[in-house]
Amino acid sequence: MTDYDIIIIGSGPAGLEAAITSVIRHKKILLLGQNDLSSKLRKAHIINNYLGFHDIHGPELADRFTEHLQSLNIEVTPKKAAAVYDMGDSFAVQSGAEMFQCKSVILATGVITKNLFPGEEELLGRGVSYCATCDAALYPDKTAIVISYSKNEEKEAEFLAEYAKKVIYIPMYDDPAISGDNVEIVSKKPLEILGEDSFTALRTDDGDIPADGVFILRENIAPDSLIPGIEMDQTHVIVKSDMSTNIPGVFACGDLTGPPYQFIKSAGEGNIAALSACAFIDSKKNV
Amino acid sequence: MTDYDIIIIGSGPAGLEAAITSVIRHKKILLLGQNDLSSKLRKAHIINNYLGFHDIHGPELADRFTEHLQSLNIEVTPKKAAAVYDMGDSFAVQSGAEMFQCKSVILATGVITKNLFPGEEELLGRGVSYCATCDAALYPDKTAIVISYSKNEEKEAEFLAEYAKKVIYIPMYDDPAISGDNVEIVSKKPLEILGEDSFTALRTDDGDIPADGVFILRENIAPDSLIPGIEMDQTHVIVKSDMSTNIPGVFACGDLTGPPYQFIKSAGEGNIAALSACAFIDSKKNV
Repeated sequence: MTDYDIIIIGSGPAGLEAAITSVIRHKKILLLGQNDLSSKLRKAHIINNYLGFHDIHGPELADRFTEHLQSLNIEVTPKKAAAVYDMGDSFAVQSGAEMFQCKSVILATGVITKNLFPGEEELLGRGVSYCATCDAALYPDKTAIVISYSKNEEKEAEFLAEYAKKVIYIPMYDDPAISGDNVEIVSKKPLEILGEDSFTALRTDDGDIPADGVFILRENIAPDSLIPGIEMDQTHVIVKSDMSTNIPGVFACGDLTGPPYQFIKSAGEGNIAALSACAFIDSKKNV
Repeated sequence: MTDYDIIIIGSGPAGLEAAITSVIRHKKILLLGQNDLSSKLRKAHIINNYLGFHDIHGPELADRFTEHLQSLNIEVTPKKAAAVYDMGDSFAVQSGAEMFQCKSVILATGVITKNLFPGEEELLGRGVSYCATCDAALYPDKTAIVISYSKNEEKEAEFLAEYAKKVIYIPMYDDPAISGDNVEIVSKKPLEILGEDSFTALRTDDGDIPADGVFILRENIAPDSLIPGIEMDQTHVIVKSDMSTNIPGVFACGDLTGPPYQFIKSAGEGNIAALSACAFIDSKKNV
């Protein structure tokens, strides 16, 4: 038995429409995302091309989406997926120390800006990590650097600080509010990941910072870091017209699949992805 | 100089979203469709999977769409496209006796039910026609049968009656309101198109009706009748992810491109088609 029929990763218009469509089709879902749904949506000034709403502000449209979710008793679970494992007949989605099982996965994590640091890709898994809760246990008596792109990551870093000797926290946003005796906030600009066989130090605009490892916590994890083997075209997941990816049971929708980066396009694709995921699950019943 | 940048054929969610997106991008458009937008939408009972509107009735959602159009001063022109001609650098769209020129065409005519009458395809162009205003001039002193699937076609038939000696009007809907001295309303069920080399008579459930020609006026013309050479997969137009068809400058969106037949999917595709049409037009400027 799996915990859920469908796990939807992402709470922008694509993920929300996928959630709504799945629930209407009587699927048990887990919707992983942010409480404010989508920072891109919240920050949108005036939206005028979402058919049915004219001259609407981003926060107002987000509120309408929230009302829609509430009418169907759909909740956003404010957790971040760190990895998706293909178990053959099911999928396991890791979020921090938790693991959720499901029959189908819908990726709706938004567009990925793949500006990696020099050295990042080369040293991934050898001192460079994207998941603090996954790897925290490896850091007793060690020093870890955290490069964090979002306030939402502060809890991750605090969790890491429970294990590590010291956490050097580099916020890439304003007003960090992280605390802890062994947490030092450092406001320097990261430039390069240093190390030969494994990570040794972070080069910044103000000197090198040596450490045992570095965690790079971006708002979105690149799909191929999340699900190894997923077919991508540079920064976008390659999908067929039914939003299926090259991995059976994994669907993608929204900005993640490529331009145009428009809310109504994302919502439309969320609908398709959900119906395809439902069909995928139902087809397995009859085998 | 063309009359329009983009002619959009169809006024369901796909066509409306295409119109809105095109106008926001400062394109001059002609939106051909029905005053009530879409009978499928108007007849929808409760719609619950169009993100942002929950538990909404079809007519209410249609009203919201109309408000959106009005906010951008977009009007639906209640004319039917009879044929689209590829002129190389532009397109000509025929509607009755009128001809409109444009740089790009967006097809959003909805799903086509291709239940042809036996003999229809074989005798098309040899006594069987889909456009009364196109072929009316061929009928002086002749008798024409009109099989009509919509009240909207009555004007077409009345125009034909100005030329023809006699029009036998077979309404496939309730309460026909067509008039004319030489128009006879006949309530019989058409079964088969008869004729060897050319049309001779219509077989009905109540005997054969001989005539010089038959006009079959369905709500939607099949895309490959509208634009010869457009690539189809049975009843659907084949599109790439940018909604382009095999004919450069012609885009398709909505139910026409295949399932799922959902309003939000159609709207999303309308957005993509419009942005692709805009890019197509803009790319030609620079040549």
